Amino acid sequence: MTITPNHKVREYKDIIDQQLSTLFDDVTMNTRIKAAMSYSLTVGGKRVRPVLMMLTADAFGADVEKVRPVALALECVHTYSLIHDDLPAMDNDDYRRGKLTNHKQFDEATAILAGDALLTYSFQLISDATQLSAEEKVYALKRLSEVSGPLGMVGGQMYDLSYEQTDISLDQLEEVHDLKTGQLLIYALEMGAFLSHQPMEVIEAMKKAATAIGLTFQIQDDILDIIGDETALGKKVGSDVLNDKSTYPKLLGLDGAIKEKQKFVDETKKQLDFAGVLQTPLAQFIISLSERTV
Amino acid sequence: MTITPNHKVREYKDIIDQQLSTLFDDVTMNTRIKAAMSYSLTVGGKRVRPVLMMLTADAFGADVEKVRPVALALECVHTYSLIHDDLPAMDNDDYRRGKLTNHKQFDEATAILAGDALLTYSFQLISDATQLSAEEKVYALKRLSEVSGPLGMVGGQMYDLSYEQTDISLDQLEEVHDLKTGQLLIYALEMGAFLSHQPMEVIEAMKKAATAIGLTFQIQDDILDIIGDETALGKKVGSDVLNDKSTYPKLLGLDGAIKEKQKFVDETKKQLDFAGVLQTPLAQFIISLSERTV
Repeated sequence: MTITPNHKVREYKDIIDQQLSTLFDDVTMNTRIKAAMSYSLTVGGKRVRPVLMMLTADAFGADVEKVRPVALALECVHTYSLIHDDLPAMDNDDYRRGKLTNHKQFDEATAILAGDALLTYSFQLISDATQLSAEEKVYALKRLSEVSGPLGMVGGQMYDLSYEQTDISLDQLEEVHDLKTGQLLIYALEMGAFLSHQPMEVIEAMKKAATAIGLTFQIQDDILDIIGDETALGKKVGSDVLNDKSTYPKLLGLDGAIKEKQKFVDETKKQLDFAGVLQTPLAQFIISLSERTV
Repeated sequence: MTITPNHKVREYKDIIDQQLSTLFDDVTMNTRIKAAMSYSLTVGGKRVRPVLMMLTADAFGADVEKVRPVALALECVHTYSLIHDDLPAMDNDDYRRGKLTNHKQFDEATAILAGDALLTYSFQLISDATQLSAEEKVYALKRLSEVSGPLGMVGGQMYDLSYEQTDISLDQLEEVHDLKTGQLLIYALEMGAFLSHQPMEVIEAMKKAATAIGLTFQIQDDILDIIGDETALGKKVGSDVLNDKSTYPKLLGLDGAIKEKQKFVDETKKQLDFAGVLQTPLAQFIISLSERTV
């Protein structure tokens, strides 16, 4: 994924990378679980979710240091979901980002426990955050459990498994993506705004923007799987068609999918404008992601 | 396990059973994940942890209704740990309490997700508790992540897997049991006392009591695996010796294990006495559990 020159994106990504690489340095725990958690946390990744949260706080003029523990917690939840998704009983992937998946690097039992541990630890990170009030912590913890649990991401993964090899409608496709990947993006923008003490209608606009962003990214993925450049993408294209996967191009045709994507890009801009953050590094980053070709 | 006639134990167990059986009735979510979560929550069990928490609150004269959501959350965490423990990559058990394990009743992917969902939902239950202050919620959430995550239960499970077929010392054996099963018992008594506004030294005594209770139960299990009555226990005895498992009788001999158990029973009584709750249904329940023969 190309990231446009945006020094704040680089700065926040570096902070997250650095923090994740030292997250358990002073924590006494079983060395194997620590190694397995650290392995997946530091195997790489664009850190889109925590960077979005910090950019959102910055866009509203808040101290990004305040949201940092919540941003780290969100990346821990995202990482746990990848570890469990890769398991033999789920997607059965041996590699992710060119490195061995957790259960191949360690073993299956360790990967299950490392995922469990990262999920649990994310709640500890927020509970221990020094710059948040008790009320802010409770709301951040409550929303994290909602967006990542059976009402959110885990629910979406269950739908996704149920729908395999099944023809589904556009509404069902949107629900899967909204739950499976959209909810964590919502959390990123919502918490960035909430912890910056924005009024309810601004927080709602940011949540709507995040929903549109999630669907934009998904359609983009689907489109690139058809017209993307294999060399530039670094992965085979055409796998969705091969696997008869439900995608936007399959349901709407390629032109229809491109139009649908533009609809969500327009919606994103509208909501960011309403929230007063259209002329910010946050908006610049979001637009660059939705226009990526690799 | 025999439970002595103690009408409060029965009353609280019934409350927990009833609440768990209707926990998701009004919650809109994917029907398969709901079914899988509900299956394991209602498959039975003694509800020792939530009942202990409610008995503790009662022993300190607090309203047990206040701790109920926290007690339910604790049982959700315990249930998730059983679902993941039973998985093929872990203990590979087909049955638990005479019923199919989650991954046999559903499938492996669903069981992984149902465990993840229950763990996540437990934090939501506490966040949504109506009778707790924000400060109480944060402490309950922080401690739940500590006792159940890599610093607690998950860490203990990792040690347990690492130590399989290994000769370990008495100290190592105690650490495994303290983390794997002791920490959730600590949470039960600690939260019962904390939410009843007990002073720090009383809360500390209850945590020490819980540590001793956990080790008492474990030695009891180990002893019953040698001298227990198969018919009364409803399971085969002698499996620990067969599997060359590290146990108290293996390390200390049967007589030594019986003496070690008595040491922890005495410690439990001492701490409960210090906390002023030795003459309560809570103490009666704990003593009855440590004297069980089946």
